[in-house]
Amino acid sequence: MNLEEMGEFGFIRRISRGCIVRAEGVIKGIGDDAAVFTLEEKEAALVTTDLLVEGIHFLRDSICGFDLGYKAIAANLSDIAAMGGNAREAFISLAIPPTVSLEYLDGIYDGMKGLAGEFSVNILGGDTTASKRDLVINIAVVGSAPRDEVLFRGGAREGDIIFVSGFLGESRAGLHIILDRDHDRSEAFESLLLAHMRPRPHLREGCFLAHHGGVTSAMDVSDGITSDLCHMTKASGLGALLDSSYIPITDALRKYCGLCGLDPVEFALQGGEDYVLLFTVDPQRADQLSVDFEKAFGAQIFPIGVMKSREGIEVREEDGMRRALPPPGWNHFRQD
Amino acid sequence: MNLEEMGEFGFIRRISRGCIVRAEGVIKGIGDDAAVFTLEEKEAALVTTDLLVEGIHFLRDSICGFDLGYKAIAANLSDIAAMGGNAREAFISLAIPPTVSLEYLDGIYDGMKGLAGEFSVNILGGDTTASKRDLVINIAVVGSAPRDEVLFRGGAREGDIIFVSGFLGESRAGLHIILDRDHDRSEAFESLLLAHMRPRPHLREGCFLAHHGGVTSAMDVSDGITSDLCHMTKASGLGALLDSSYIPITDALRKYCGLCGLDPVEFALQGGEDYVLLFTVDPQRADQLSVDFEKAFGAQIFPIGVMKSREGIEVREEDGMRRALPPPGWNHFRQD
Repeated sequence: MNLEEMGEFGFIRRISRGCIVRAEGVIKGIGDDAAVFTLEEKEAALVTTDLLVEGIHFLRDSICGFDLGYKAIAANLSDIAAMGGNAREAFISLAIPPTVSLEYLDGIYDGMKGLAGEFSVNILGGDTTASKRDLVINIAVVGSAPRDEVLFRGGAREGDIIFVSGFLGESRAGLHIILDRDHDRSEAFESLLLAHMRPRPHLREGCFLAHHGGVTSAMDVSDGITSDLCHMTKASGLGALLDSSYIPITDALRKYCGLCGLDPVEFALQGGEDYVLLFTVDPQRADQLSVDFEKAFGAQIFPIGVMKSREGIEVREEDGMRRALPPPGWNHFRQD
Repeated sequence: MNLEEMGEFGFIRRISRGCIVRAEGVIKGIGDDAAVFTLEEKEAALVTTDLLVEGIHFLRDSICGFDLGYKAIAANLSDIAAMGGNAREAFISLAIPPTVSLEYLDGIYDGMKGLAGEFSVNILGGDTTASKRDLVINIAVVGSAPRDEVLFRGGAREGDIIFVSGFLGESRAGLHIILDRDHDRSEAFESLLLAHMRPRPHLREGCFLAHHGGVTSAMDVSDGITSDLCHMTKASGLGALLDSSYIPITDALRKYCGLCGLDPVEFALQGGEDYVLLFTVDPQRADQLSVDFEKAFGAQIFPIGVMKSREGIEVREEDGMRRALPPPGWNHFRQD
C-alpha cells in the first residue's frame, strides 16, 4: 500500500502507534485540534522548534529514514538539555512529496520514537501534508524546568570557567567519512560515524548541571564551538580565552586527523553537531561540580577556557602564543 | 539589502521587533536554545501546529505576504479556540528560497504580528533557514485552558444540538472569486473576499463556550462542515441530522450562488476555512447559551442539527426529504 491509497488519516493512525510513552500528565495526544497536557506547578515551560528541508539540511539518498528521524529529534532534545530542562512532549510535522516511500517515512518515525522513548518524551501531535518536491520536517518540543533553575546563554561572568560535557569534532569527522564514501575508513572509524549518526542529547546532564548550582550559562554545541561560543560570549557581553591543549579530542579523532593531515584542535573547534553542552561555571564551584558530575555519570566534563571581559575569542596554543578565532561564518542564506 | 547580505541573525533581529505583546509570564523569547514561559497553576497546556508548503497550501503569486501570514496564524489560533483555550505563545519557522524578497517576508511577519497582537499572543521563537525551491511555513501555538473546561471533539451525546458560531461558505466563495480573477465580482462581493483573506479566529467565543457549561464537544470548521462534522461524529461514536433551512448563509453568499447557479446550502456545507466553531450543546442548556452568547458578543450562534445515535450524516431538505451527506473526500496525498 502507498501513501496515496492510505490517505492522510490512515497515515496518521499508522504513525500514532507508540507515540505516548508516558501517560501521566497527558490529557489528549494526536487526534484533536490541539494536544492537551499539564505542567507541574512552579515549572517554566520550554519550547524549541527546528525546520529541516531536503537539499538544505539533508540529502535523502545519503541518510536512511531512521537516522534522519533520530537526528532531527536529537537536535531538539539537545536544545531542551541546553536550558537545563526535562523534555516532555514532541510535535512532528511532515510535508511529504510523492517520491518518498512509506518505508522511509516509517523509518523517520521509528528513529524519532526510539530516541524520544528513551527519554520519556511523548509524541503528542503535529501535522502531515503533501509537498510537491522536497521532504520537510518540523519538530517542536515542549519541556519544563523549575523556574529558578533554567540555564540561559547570557549569564556568564568574567572569570567563569568554560566547560564542555563531552568530546568535540567526532560528528564532523563522521560526516566527512560519509561524504567521502570511503568504505575502509567507515570500518576503521565506526565510533566517528556513530557520533555523527546517533548523537546523544545530554538531557540528564543538563538537568544535573541546572540543579547543581554554580553553572552560570549553557547552550548546546550544534554549529561548532567557534560559532556557539561566539553567541554565548555576545549574550553575556564578554569574550573568551580557550586553551588548545584542553580541547577534548578522542584518540580516534586524533588518528583520523593524522591520516588526513588535519589539525585536530582546529577541526574540533570548527566541528558542528556535537550536541554536547557548552557551559560556564563559577570558578569557586568548578572543582566540586567536576567531581559530582563524574560521580553521577561516570564521565568527565572538560574545562576548555575562561570567560574574559575583552570581546572576541582567543586560543592559547601549546607554545603560549595566542591567536584570535575568526568570527563564525555560517549563514543559511548564503549561496555558495 | 537582501536576505543573503543580511544573514540569518540579521534577519532574526529584524523579525524580533514587536514579537512580545504581553510580557507577563514570559521569561525568554527569541534568542536562546528554547523559549521559556510560565503557565498558571491548574491550567492545561494546549499545543497545535500547522505546516504550510508552497504549491500545496498557497501559491506565492496569488497571495501577498501579509495575507499569507495572517491566514497561517489565524488557522492555528482557531485550533486553540476550538479547544476552549486562550492562545498564548506562537513559534514561527520559515524555510526561505532565494526567490522570496525581504518585503514579502516582512509582509508575512506583519500579518502574523497583527493578528497575534490583537489576541495578546506573543511570538517567542521559531527557526529560520534556507530552502532550495519552496517557501515553507511552520507555526506552533501554545495555549492554555482550565483543566476541567477543555473542549474535545469527542464529547457529544445523542440528542445534543449542533451549533456553529458564524456563517458558513463565505470563505470558499471568496476563494472562487480570487481564482476567477473577476474584477467586477471582487468589487461587488468584498465581504466574501474578506471572509477568505481575513478570517477571525473565534478565540474569545471558544473560551466563553468552554466556561459557560452545557457545551459537550467542539472543533473549528477548517475543511468544511461535511468533513469536520464527520470527524466529530466519529470521535463521539454518533451520527448527525442537519436541517438545510437552518444552515446560516449570508445574503451576499446567497446572491453570489444565485449568479453562479450554485446551491448555497450545498456550497456552505462543503466550504472550508470558515474558522467558525462547530460545537454540540446539551438540549436543556441550548436556549440559555444562545441568549448568553448574544448578550456577550452581540452576535448569534446558529443551531444546524442534532446528534443521532445512527452513524453517518443526513440532511433534511425543506421538503422534508432526507439525503445522506457523502463522506468527505479530502486527502492531502491524492494527486489530481
